[in-house]
This record gives sequence, structure tokens and C-alpha cells, in this order.
Amino acid sequence: MGKHTLYAVLVLMISSCIQPDTNNFELNEMPESVVAKLTAQQNAWNSGDIKAFMEIAYWKDDALIFIGSKGPTYGFDATLTNYEKSYPNAQAMGTLKFELLDWRSLGTNHGLMVGSWALSRKGDLEDLQGHFSLTWECQEGNWVIIADHSS
Amino acid sequence: MGKHTLYAVLVLMISSCIQPDTNNFELNEMPESVVAKLTAQQNAWNSGDIKAFMEIAYWKDDALIFIGSKGPTYGFDATLTNYEKSYPNAQAMGTLKFELLDWRSLGTNHGLMVGSWALSRKGDLEDLQGHFSLTWECQEGNWVIIADHSS
Repeated sequence: MGKHTLYAVLVLMISSCIQPDTNNFELNEMPESVVAKLTAQQNAWNSGDIKAFMEIAYWKDDALIFIGSKGPTYGFDATLTNYEKSYPNAQAMGTLKFELLDWRSLGTNHGLMVGSWALSRKGDLEDLQGHFSLTWECQEGNWVIIADHSS
Repeated sequence: MGKHTLYAVLVLMISSCIQPDTNNFELNEMPESVVAKLTAQQNAWNSGDIKAFMEIAYWKDDALIFIGSKGPTYGFDATLTNYEKSYPNAQAMGTLKFELLDWRSLGTNHGLMVGSWALSRKGDLEDLQGHFSLTWECQEGNWVIIADHSS
């Protein structure tokens, strides 16, 4: 990678943290990379790859919090294990569809995303749906989910 | 109010926004006024006053988000109406107990609080329990809940 390319990448990484610091909750204020990650997550899930689904967006750290129907789970690894238990194969995973409903900037480096999720499943498995609120943090130019409350 | 008292109050209000900007999620990093508000909310609920319960801590704004079992509700008034429908009297409200599990500083003026809630109720009404994640914002020295996901 040439020096100029590297510089361009660095600028892009830094600029990806910039967001308006307001509470007027327009979805179009959501950082583009966050939208891109959510789309990539949906695609990873729908190709049966839970690990990629998590690695694309979740903070790879023991401090990640996932709050589901059984309460909080701490850490990337424990959250991945839970996902794998609940969705042991492609049939159980079904087809995921996210819908984004809201984005709130929380200062420069954080944001709250609210949306809905729906799983269409074949066979005897029931369809599932609910809502999520994701707390995103921009870490050295890279937005990651540091907390997920899904219900 | 004397000039010195006013000054002390102003200093207290400003200093109440100060929090460590780290991710080491110690509960003791939670701003004291946030803990005090949660305790006051619990007391208000347990004296049957839903309006005070909300006014103590929730952002009095149409942009407040409450995500419950039916999805998102926007605005202080609509959220209050929902609470009043679900808990029409003191018996339905029961006795509320909060337990705080986690606090994450999100920059200087925001924080994510995770905890559990439990309602003990008498008569035919079942006890209820769940978890909450609350996004707090410090607005001119005053911490308010701008988003509540309860499940």
C-alpha cells in the first residue's frame, strides 16, 4: 500500500467517527459504516455464518454486553456460544431481516440504534421477531456494538 | 437562596456531569445523581405515583424512546399513558425493586445503565420481572433517561 493510499485510508477511518452531535434522530445521520455493517451482518446470518455475523459488528471483548430474554451475557465468546446454542443450524437460523427505526448520536463516538428484527423459518420452526437497541462505539475509526438489548 | 448557596448548587449541577470516560464498567463510576434518581423512582412507584416515577428521571420530550414488549413508543406523554394503562392502580403496580448491574460511560455526557426490575404483586396478579437498559444523557447538569429498553 502506497503512502498516499495509507493516508487516505487513515483519513477515512478517522472521518468515519464524525457524526452530528444532535438529538434529532434522523436515520440519515447514522454513520455509513454502521449501516454497511448491519447489512453485512444480515448477509452473514443468511449464509449461515453466525461467527461472521458477530465478528462484523460486535466488540471482540469480554466487556461486550448482550441482554436477551434470559438477562445479560458478558463477553464476545459467551454471546457467540449463546447464539450457536439457540441457532444450531441454517434451518434454525432462517432468514434474518433487520429494519432500522432510529439513530441517536451520543456525543462524537457513541450512538444508539433502534430497530426491529425478524426471522422467517421453514418447517416446524416458528418465525421469530422483536426489537433491538444497539449501543455503538467508535474505536479508532471503527464502529462496534458494545451493548445489545434484544427482545 | 443566598448567593453562596446558589453557587454551591450550580457547582453541584455542573460537577454532576463529570464521569470517568472509560469502559471498565464499575458500578461505582455511576454518577451519584443517577443512583439517587433511580432510588427516588423506586420510591415514587411504590407510593403509587407513576407520573412522579417518570418525571424524576425520564426526559420530558417527544423524542424519548421507550422500547417494551410491543416495540418502541416515542415521547414522554405516550410512555406515561402506556404505563398508566398497564398499571391502572396501586395493586397492579405492586412493589418495584430495581437492581443495578452495570454502568458504561459513553463519553462525558452519556451513560448506559443495565439492571433488573421485579414487581411483587398481591392477589390474582402475577409477579413480573425483567431487565432494562437505560441510556442516560446529562443535559445542563441534569441526568435524564433518553431511551429505555425494558424486557
